[in-house]
Amino acid sequence: MNQTNAAPPAGPPEDAEPGLIDTVPGEDAAAAESRHDEDDRLKPEYVSAVREAVEQGDRDRARELVSPLHPADIADLIELTPAEERADIIAALGDLVGAEVLSELNEYVRDDLIEALEPQQVADLASELDTDDAVAIIEDMEEADQQAVLDAMEPEDRAAIESALAYPEESAGRLMQRDLIAVPPHMNVGQVIDYLRDGQRLTTDFWEIFVVDEAHHPIGTCQLSWVLTCPRSIPIADVMKREQTLIPVDMDQEEVALRFQKYALISAAVVDAEGRLVGMITVDDILHIVQEEAGEDILRLSGAGDGDINEPILESYKGRVRWLLSNLVTALVASTIIGIFEGTIEKMVALATLMPIVAGVGGNAGSQTMAVTVRALATNQITASNRWRTVLREIRVALLNGSTVACVLGIGVAIVFGNIVLGGVIAAAMMANIVTAGLAGASIPLIFDRFDADPAVASSIFVTMVTDSMGFLAFLGLATAAGLTG
Amino acid sequence: MNQTNAAPPAGPPEDAEPGLIDTVPGEDAAAAESRHDEDDRLKPEYVSAVREAVEQGDRDRARELVSPLHPADIADLIELTPAEERADIIAALGDLVGAEVLSELNEYVRDDLIEALEPQQVADLASELDTDDAVAIIEDMEEADQQAVLDAMEPEDRAAIESALAYPEESAGRLMQRDLIAVPPHMNVGQVIDYLRDGQRLTTDFWEIFVVDEAHHPIGTCQLSWVLTCPRSIPIADVMKREQTLIPVDMDQEEVALRFQKYALISAAVVDAEGRLVGMITVDDILHIVQEEAGEDILRLSGAGDGDINEPILESYKGRVRWLLSNLVTALVASTIIGIFEGTIEKMVALATLMPIVAGVGGNAGSQTMAVTVRALATNQITASNRWRTVLREIRVALLNGSTVACVLGIGVAIVFGNIVLGGVIAAAMMANIVTAGLAGASIPLIFDRFDADPAVASSIFVTMVTDSMGFLAFLGLATAAGLTG
Repeated sequence: MNQTNAAPPAGPPEDAEPGLIDTVPGEDAAAAESRHDEDDRLKPEYVSAVREAVEQGDRDRARELVSPLHPADIADLIELTPAEERADIIAALGDLVGAEVLSELNEYVRDDLIEALEPQQVADLASELDTDDAVAIIEDMEEADQQAVLDAMEPEDRAAIESALAYPEESAGRLMQRDLIAVPPHMNVGQVIDYLRDGQRLTTDFWEIFVVDEAHHPIGTCQLSWVLTCPRSIPIADVMKREQTLIPVDMDQEEVALRFQKYALISAAVVDAEGRLVGMITVDDILHIVQEEAGEDILRLSGAGDGDINEPILESYKGRVRWLLSNLVTALVASTIIGIFEGTIEKMVALATLMPIVAGVGGNAGSQTMAVTVRALATNQITASNRWRTVLREIRVALLNGSTVACVLGIGVAIVFGNIVLGGVIAAAMMANIVTAGLAGASIPLIFDRFDADPAVASSIFVTMVTDSMGFLAFLGLATAAGLTG
Repeated sequence: MNQTNAAPPAGPPEDAEPGLIDTVPGEDAAAAESRHDEDDRLKPEYVSAVREAVEQGDRDRARELVSPLHPADIADLIELTPAEERADIIAALGDLVGAEVLSELNEYVRDDLIEALEPQQVADLASELDTDDAVAIIEDMEEADQQAVLDAMEPEDRAAIESALAYPEESAGRLMQRDLIAVPPHMNVGQVIDYLRDGQRLTTDFWEIFVVDEAHHPIGTCQLSWVLTCPRSIPIADVMKREQTLIPVDMDQEEVALRFQKYALISAAVVDAEGRLVGMITVDDILHIVQEEAGEDILRLSGAGDGDINEPILESYKGRVRWLLSNLVTALVASTIIGIFEGTIEKMVALATLMPIVAGVGGNAGSQTMAVTVRALATNQITASNRWRTVLREIRVALLNGSTVACVLGIGVAIVFGNIVLGGVIAAAMMANIVTAGLAGASIPLIFDRFDADPAVASSIFVTMVTDSMGFLAFLGLATAAGLTG
């Protein structure tokens, strides 16, 4: 049997974890409805009931309430409980809070809880999990604590985790499981099925079988449905598909997620630098990453750091204040530009009243273009082939937006202030600023991307600086040039 | 055989579509590398080479270049080609642009191409696809065109698509496939395998087998790996897991995606109002939705509409200008507040120079809090149980941010302007505005959510209005009250 890095196959699933639970067997639908709202979130009354039982020391009642829950829901329950009550609730629930719940928990909440555990307890929990989930629990610990946990583990589990930790953070090597089924091409379907039935267990779910050559290079892949629908006598080499997506072990998780999405993968083989099969990534771990990575852009564009509501307050503060201070600097640039025109403003204070409109609406136009560009970059929709076409497209949209907003604003100002020149000046400035915003909003993220910097991280500071400065400069400059205050 | 809504099972996969292609068999790695960059995007030189071949009428060369590509990559190639060349390239590629490519295409690009096709051509393409992909192609057509396509289809395909179209847009009913394997509980593993091997074909990939009772209510589910690892004699009722996530057919796709993620599903049964099994949703279709929904928030928060770079310019204009005009109205509110203090500004023009700083940095702080809150709401992290705790948390972060920024700004202004009172006034105003921003940024999305409105759609207009108005009011008001200009 040619099977490296492959644990024995799984047996029958009597001990499989419940996958989920709309109603628990033997329980009526009403009981389930008393827990979840229509969006599948735990109802506040239910959370309160559990908290109350724990507070009153009624452990049995708490366990009775919580026992029908899926591990993901128990994790939600813990997250929805105020931080200071979490230790009590976990103590009351006992073995209901197992390794699976831990791996579903928000990482900040989990790190908090893990700090309170002994290394041996963490080691025991981690060894119940797939390698990738165990790594996720251990990777954020302080190095000394991490070492203590590793020391407390069985040598085999420990080796698997240590080798995963040797790969860079957020790489395929951290995401992959080592348990997989790999067979040589000369087996036939019947032999593969017999091998799978052999009574040993693969600790993880699997969706495809990898076919490898003698050097453990993947040469094909076989969905389980193909194995099931083929006669026993057919060689696996005739069933397998030769083309498959191979994930290099050092590939960044964002890139891995994009491949899963592009090629509609359920699982994929991970290969080392020599092209040998070293692990498998499954789509259930990818869903979290797609969600995270797609959601990250919004947080980065606004400088909200990790942006997790469970993040310790001091960390949120550190992440966000840096951004606000950077924005303070760019605001000073805009302020300096206004300062140049103090004389003009002194003569016509109405300009001070109107100038934030030009800067503000321009800033909004810049945000729109920037959001579109950052998303398109994140989903690999923009390459060198259509980069300038995209900028041109945004400028054309900006010309249309600018004309409309400039007309409305110009006419309005001319009427309210009874001053046609002022109306013309603000319309021209608005037009100029929206077009500038379109150009900056599209090209600044592209420039960051071109130099391999994350376009979401710093673009908005620069775009805001451009639209603020341009807004004040165009409006006050044109007002001065038009002799409005002369 | 108790099997409704279930097509015959799949046969061996000789005709399965290639799942992907790092290298095509018989081709060296260098050839693949000449097409894709390290991020798996098509290289601009490759795209240019294809465009050139098409332009020169060298159809064979174009086909030779494109034939090793996966359908998803052919779709990318078409998207990366300027709109005016797309018809030519598709004509040149002929049958390489099949139904699968069409279903991978960006919807705007696809709708453009489909308009140029005859109803019979669209019908032929759609009938090659799974129901969910066929529906995606047809659902956006004008009603008359849609009817023409449906009329041109085989009755069976037509019925499947019509019944999918009867469900609301973006609901589970539109996403599901009707082809699935459903078996009665009295079969044993061997009978199930024999049934699957029966030589008929299921046109779609499948990952689990549903067990249904006589009324077609799902009573359990069975992963293929369990079937494969169990002895033939075991009844399927002993292999299946009774707990399973059932997706109501009218559930919104965002909610479906959250369930897949929460419970790490690969596929799930879809049931009608009577609880009967009517279809199956697989995770490969969910990945796109997670990506879309998570990415949508950033576009909605900035009012960028659909925010697709392939959207027709006029549609982008319509979507965005509405937002800019709304922002114009809120900017007028801020402008009116400044107007109240014209007398103060007249006496001390420096105030006009400084006031955008207070409003701008406050706006940034508001965006941060809003982004965090909108993401937490979208991922079901906030419920009534922790709503106010979250607002309180954001206010605490705001107090820290506010103190820091206010100190830096206040001291700076006091020194530069040699005016301690002015420094104190701007520091107090900055502090007040950042705390207001924290309160508004957290509570406005929560209020929208509370009333079942999408918190991403309108929050930022209101938050900006609050931070702008508060910024100007606090700064100019305090300056007046402090007698700075008196």
